[in-house]
Amino acid sequence: MGDCLFCRIVERKIPSKIVHEDELVVAFEDVNPQAPTHMLVIPRKHIPSLKETDAADAALLGHLMTVCAKIAKQKGLADSGYRLVTNTGPNGGQTVFHLHIHLLGGRPMEWPPG
Amino acid sequence: MGDCLFCRIVERKIPSKIVHEDELVVAFEDVNPQAPTHMLVIPRKHIPSLKETDAADAALLGHLMTVCAKIAKQKGLADSGYRLVTNTGPNGGQTVFHLHIHLLGGRPMEWPPG
Repeated sequence: MGDCLFCRIVERKIPSKIVHEDELVVAFEDVNPQAPTHMLVIPRKHIPSLKETDAADAALLGHLMTVCAKIAKQKGLADSGYRLVTNTGPNGGQTVFHLHIHLLGGRPMEWPPG
Repeated sequence: MGDCLFCRIVERKIPSKIVHEDELVVAFEDVNPQAPTHMLVIPRKHIPSLKETDAADAALLGHLMTVCAKIAKQKGLADSGYRLVTNTGPNGGQTVFHLHIHLLGGRPMEWPPG
């Protein structure tokens, strides 16, 4: 997956502001933030989008979400609140085809969510 | 949790348009849809928000996400795309304190996500 932007971030071939990493996931700051805190939490494994997942990926997907909660807590967002967003395909607004969860906080998020 | 709206939906004490259910989760149509398809996928178990989860909940959270992908596929949204949104606390815009994932599709979702 040499042409995948996020795989290259995971491999540290492209610089990014990494805020968390473990054996399964990497989290880094979005370069085009939409809120005072805006991070992306991604699996190290290349999965294009949620569309390509099935029950076998549930543990990994759940880990992504609990890492989001953990980072939010570390960043002091647990009480003020935050929003997680995962875009899949064209109508979702997905632009990088390596599965990722957006973690946004630090301002009141509006409704509808885009 | 007798006063939790979503627990009452799970218990079928309040009517809702349920689109999926299994031993762990229930999915139903949002009564105030923000897109042509707008469903909520929730655990049967009462968890107020993502803030109250930890690593022990990863399997359940992952199951919620794979159920979202499954429903999106069943509704014909897999290729056109969709967005998942989870609000936590005040800045997230959370209004019902029973953890839920919004599944939105059927129109192009905009950016920023609220």
